[in-house]
Amino acid sequence: MQRKLKDIGEFGLIKRIAEKEKVFGKEVIVGIGDDSAVIKYKKGYHLLLTTDMLIEGIHFNKKATPFQIGYKSLATNISDIAAMGGIPKYALVSLGLKKETSIKFVDEIYRGIRSLAKKFKVTILGGDTVSSPKIIINIALSGEVKKNYLTLRKGAKPGDKIYVTGTLGGSILGKHLSFIPRVKEARYLVENFHPTSMIDISDGLLSDLKRVCEASKVGARIYQEKIPLSQGVISLAKKKKENPYRLALTGGEEFELLFTLSKKYKNCRGRIHPTRGFITQIGEITKRGIVLLDEKNKVIHLRKIGFDHFKNAGNIS
Amino acid sequence: MQRKLKDIGEFGLIKRIAEKEKVFGKEVIVGIGDDSAVIKYKKGYHLLLTTDMLIEGIHFNKKATPFQIGYKSLATNISDIAAMGGIPKYALVSLGLKKETSIKFVDEIYRGIRSLAKKFKVTILGGDTVSSPKIIINIALSGEVKKNYLTLRKGAKPGDKIYVTGTLGGSILGKHLSFIPRVKEARYLVENFHPTSMIDISDGLLSDLKRVCEASKVGARIYQEKIPLSQGVISLAKKKKENPYRLALTGGEEFELLFTLSKKYKNCRGRIHPTRGFITQIGEITKRGIVLLDEKNKVIHLRKIGFDHFKNAGNIS
Repeated sequence: MQRKLKDIGEFGLIKRIAEKEKVFGKEVIVGIGDDSAVIKYKKGYHLLLTTDMLIEGIHFNKKATPFQIGYKSLATNISDIAAMGGIPKYALVSLGLKKETSIKFVDEIYRGIRSLAKKFKVTILGGDTVSSPKIIINIALSGEVKKNYLTLRKGAKPGDKIYVTGTLGGSILGKHLSFIPRVKEARYLVENFHPTSMIDISDGLLSDLKRVCEASKVGARIYQEKIPLSQGVISLAKKKKENPYRLALTGGEEFELLFTLSKKYKNCRGRIHPTRGFITQIGEITKRGIVLLDEKNKVIHLRKIGFDHFKNAGNIS
Repeated sequence: MQRKLKDIGEFGLIKRIAEKEKVFGKEVIVGIGDDSAVIKYKKGYHLLLTTDMLIEGIHFNKKATPFQIGYKSLATNISDIAAMGGIPKYALVSLGLKKETSIKFVDEIYRGIRSLAKKFKVTILGGDTVSSPKIIINIALSGEVKKNYLTLRKGAKPGDKIYVTGTLGGSILGKHLSFIPRVKEARYLVENFHPTSMIDISDGLLSDLKRVCEASKVGARIYQEKIPLSQGVISLAKKKKENPYRLALTGGEEFELLFTLSKKYKNCRGRIHPTRGFITQIGEITKRGIVLLDEKNKVIHLRKIGFDHFKNAGNIS
């Protein structure tokens, strides 16, 4: 039987692609396998390159306004640049639209893109428009990062503390369409604390933590009750008879930052609590294995909260 | 009645987008409106950024092999870098695929991309994979160009001679899936002749010539019988009871270069005929209007060969 894409998941596909890729020239610092690719650039800076594709019915439904679709498409890309410690700069927009689409609808998509572009001083440099049976939007975003601010997924060391920005669990409440990418928070962190690793939470806290652990060749211990829950997620969980922490630990598209700081900052909690967005310590890096603990420090089996190492290893979303 | 996308076409949409775009910073040399965007880069070089989206049923049908789909997606982007006089460098690949897609199919798409990447020393830096009801492939490609080799659409002057590389009319015979982007030819041209303008033929010779004329604020005179026809296009035209020149003048996805040289090169035909691919002079730049002449120098009405200034002004393909 032929193996299907769903059998290996996105992580499996990325590994498969990365293994065969050939790097030409000496200017590639990071290729496949981080939030953005990193290339040698002008003096003191690296160039960052990233791309994200959103498709109607998968990443947004018919209830999403065209403004929200445009907004989200740029926001997810900016989040990838932020997770490297960088500043977004230039966007190329590819749009797939029905020929019957009204000009007003297209204008609204662009108004959504522009509202965020203006906020983060991103210049839209053009792109491509094609006819398509479903709405598709792909943005390729470039950015830059000061060499000494570059923060990768690899670099976490046993003993480092694990943090997240903001709150988790709000994605399904609509946050995925309106979040503000954590560029300022990431800048604050790289300027003041040199995080040992950083990633944005796009596939879910546990999935993305797994990526950091694999890249850094370490493990992690997470204290469930320390997870900062989004407003509304507790009542939503009650309604759905769900565990609110399950939503926060496995929900994708949160676009908060997950990062690690050297333990030397353990007495600097005040300083790690800037006015520009709050951060919460949720655990620490260990030598191996990902362990989730309840309020009595008892191990919670990850399968119990719906995290399957195989299945959740990057759904093709 | 609400205006639809098909009412304004791609050119109309691009104008609409470009008018509202805000450029942040002083590093943008060319934004919307050329084959690639141009950004200040390292000493002596500009950075080039371009993107292209291909969709099943529009840019390729079910007969196209996955190898061809991958190949074409990178080739169209490389063609855009070549048209600026540049060298392609880094690619980000976004793939929309059904979850039921076999791994072999994905491998074949990548084999197609890699075969061309290897030829032109392009490094694939990653991308995004999402589930989609139709096959979608978007590549964002960056490249570089020596500052003094940068060639734009604007710059053509009355009296300049108009040239094309290769032959035209072959796209519908399958060339659009297997063409070799004209990087070497473009390099030869920018190193030896400093073309005053250049574009790749993606929407059709007349459509793309119109773009050059609008950007350069000039007109053009084309001698129909000088158009170099692809092998097979004459017999195909006979079979279809078509005018072969109509196919060559209006057919999209030829991916040949259309460029102009200063008239000072008029006596250098030998030199403009390098072994690395032949070029043909097909007309000259005038002050205004686009005029097509037959072998007796009689004007051929463009509408007669199926070119409608409005309708053909960039179909959303």
